[in-house]
Amino acid sequence: MNKNYYIAIMAGGIGSRFWPKSRTNFPKQFIDILSTGKSLIQDTYNRFTSFIPIENIYIITSEKYVSLVKDQLKDIPFENILAEPSRKNTAPCIAYISFKIAQKNPNGVLLVAPSDHIIKDEESFKEIVFKSFNFVEQNNAILTFGIKPLNPNTGYGYIQINEEIQKDGIFKVKSFTEKPDLELAKIFLKTGEFFWNAGIFAWQVSTIIEAFKKYQFEIYELFNNEKLFFNTANESNSIQKIFPQCPNISIDIAILEQADNVYTIPASFDWNDLGTWNSIYENVEKDYLGNAVKSSENVIIIDATNCVISKQKEKLVIIQGLDDFIVVDTPDVLMICKKSEEQEIKNYVAEVKRQINKGDRFV
Amino acid sequence: MNKNYYIAIMAGGIGSRFWPKSRTNFPKQFIDILSTGKSLIQDTYNRFTSFIPIENIYIITSEKYVSLVKDQLKDIPFENILAEPSRKNTAPCIAYISFKIAQKNPNGVLLVAPSDHIIKDEESFKEIVFKSFNFVEQNNAILTFGIKPLNPNTGYGYIQINEEIQKDGIFKVKSFTEKPDLELAKIFLKTGEFFWNAGIFAWQVSTIIEAFKKYQFEIYELFNNEKLFFNTANESNSIQKIFPQCPNISIDIAILEQADNVYTIPASFDWNDLGTWNSIYENVEKDYLGNAVKSSENVIIIDATNCVISKQKEKLVIIQGLDDFIVVDTPDVLMICKKSEEQEIKNYVAEVKRQINKGDRFV
Repeated sequence: MNKNYYIAIMAGGIGSRFWPKSRTNFPKQFIDILSTGKSLIQDTYNRFTSFIPIENIYIITSEKYVSLVKDQLKDIPFENILAEPSRKNTAPCIAYISFKIAQKNPNGVLLVAPSDHIIKDEESFKEIVFKSFNFVEQNNAILTFGIKPLNPNTGYGYIQINEEIQKDGIFKVKSFTEKPDLELAKIFLKTGEFFWNAGIFAWQVSTIIEAFKKYQFEIYELFNNEKLFFNTANESNSIQKIFPQCPNISIDIAILEQADNVYTIPASFDWNDLGTWNSIYENVEKDYLGNAVKSSENVIIIDATNCVISKQKEKLVIIQGLDDFIVVDTPDVLMICKKSEEQEIKNYVAEVKRQINKGDRFV
Repeated sequence: MNKNYYIAIMAGGIGSRFWPKSRTNFPKQFIDILSTGKSLIQDTYNRFTSFIPIENIYIITSEKYVSLVKDQLKDIPFENILAEPSRKNTAPCIAYISFKIAQKNPNGVLLVAPSDHIIKDEESFKEIVFKSFNFVEQNNAILTFGIKPLNPNTGYGYIQINEEIQKDGIFKVKSFTEKPDLELAKIFLKTGEFFWNAGIFAWQVSTIIEAFKKYQFEIYELFNNEKLFFNTANESNSIQKIFPQCPNISIDIAILEQADNVYTIPASFDWNDLGTWNSIYENVEKDYLGNAVKSSENVIIIDATNCVISKQKEKLVIIQGLDDFIVVDTPDVLMICKKSEEQEIKNYVAEVKRQINKGDRFV
């Protein structure tokens, strides 16, 4: 095994589109959403431990989720859990892990992945990961994983490739488009030049640090000034100093959309970001009326179709007459809404904070 | 106040059409359904205590609800709570209270009423009650309360009157029809000869006992043989002996539909039997989209109309996109069904018993 290969799993999100199951204090990535017996972060972690030594796997999460990570990933070394003092989107998070690894191993090659995606075809995934490592080891490239789009999903970012410039099936990126409208997404699909942005990236740590220097000097400088403290007892102090000064910005906007050395590797494995109730629906077993029921014990469904139902295990749920609805019942929140409205759930959460007395307790 | 006037409130029902709010162990009549601060039985009881001395008011209920009655009606004398050892419908229940009162006061005049009806116009109600007492005191009559039907409801029993035979606006009954189909109910409404059967009755106890003797000799004999023990320490033993032998039969079928001295007093007061979720819906305040929400704290409704929502007080409920639905959330049961299906709820309860492991705990 190449000792230069590192994995960083980003686990700081709060999964608000997956509310009320996902909560600020116990977000999506820590939940066993598909009833597999493992949470999403456990699945993600295990996907890597089969071919990367655990000391080379890092989790970057919010300070308040550190204990959840420790609980769920029993064997990960404590020093491999990085705590962000505040939510600043992916760019500062990636700068942190990249500088940290560079400090330890200037030849480090890093793959960054979200903690809440579903990838079932693990062999194919492993193959692509190694192909990526090889590519970025030999090229000063920022590599993104592109997923062949299955439908004109308007919730994803799209990557347009330049088919002319490629090497071993890895393409130069022409453009990025974040969440296009349906019309545009349909055109994207038709051209065949577009991939979904899986949010999985690979690069040499030196490459991405150069990119920060070039495109995000503010972030670069913050981390560069403190880098000598990384991997020492003072790292945490440094991070406490750096993070409040960091802009809140995604790696896509901060670097990918600006850099001229961005590539995409088409990923043949199945992939789902499991960001929403509909994506859950697509990924679980349905009854013959198309209803997906989490905890199907104590459920009676009468003339209801194509619903996704998340219930408390012991609770009896009787549903009649609903078509295409999301029903989520937790001890303190019941949410019923049309599946077509799932992108609104984020706004419901905002409404709860705004309208409900002490609404924060529900989010 | 005439010492011969007695009230019997029947409170043995389990309110299964009002499940899952109404439970076998805590049925509808003990619930503050309309959020008035009083349960239905408390409202019913208070409606009488304003003009009938409490020692003349009896509650007949199931053995297992006796403590609920004591809890909710603090001032009722304990000996005025009659416990039925088993559910045998209204005929045995009425025989019991009638024999008991006859034993104590052969001149007793009895009004029997359900415990779960809503009557808001109390003055008008009181007036009709007194008019009834006067009529049955002077006539060997079985008097029923008839409600002017407001719509062709198929859930009620209908009384057809004979307009020719009347005295002070109290009519001889021509026929009874239990739960007609919609076609028939519409015809009933058109003729103007039909009233809803409110399930409120008045008679001299001697009259109804005569009727039992004539039409239900089996029941008559069971009670008659034990009547000397009524109002003694042995009453309960007698009842334990009698009830298992009683047929399970309603007073309507047992006597009203057979007797030739049945009359109806048109009741001008507003009345609602509050038997179903729709009847609740009709009786409570609605928001501008027609939604009736019990415990409106911690509720967000988005594009939902004409729903009836019963929730746990503290729980946050978000409902989007539902039209004409019943949503009932209790700690252990969530039921969502179309308002038009409310007559099916009884069957859902049966399905719970049949399909769900240890389903009895939910009913």
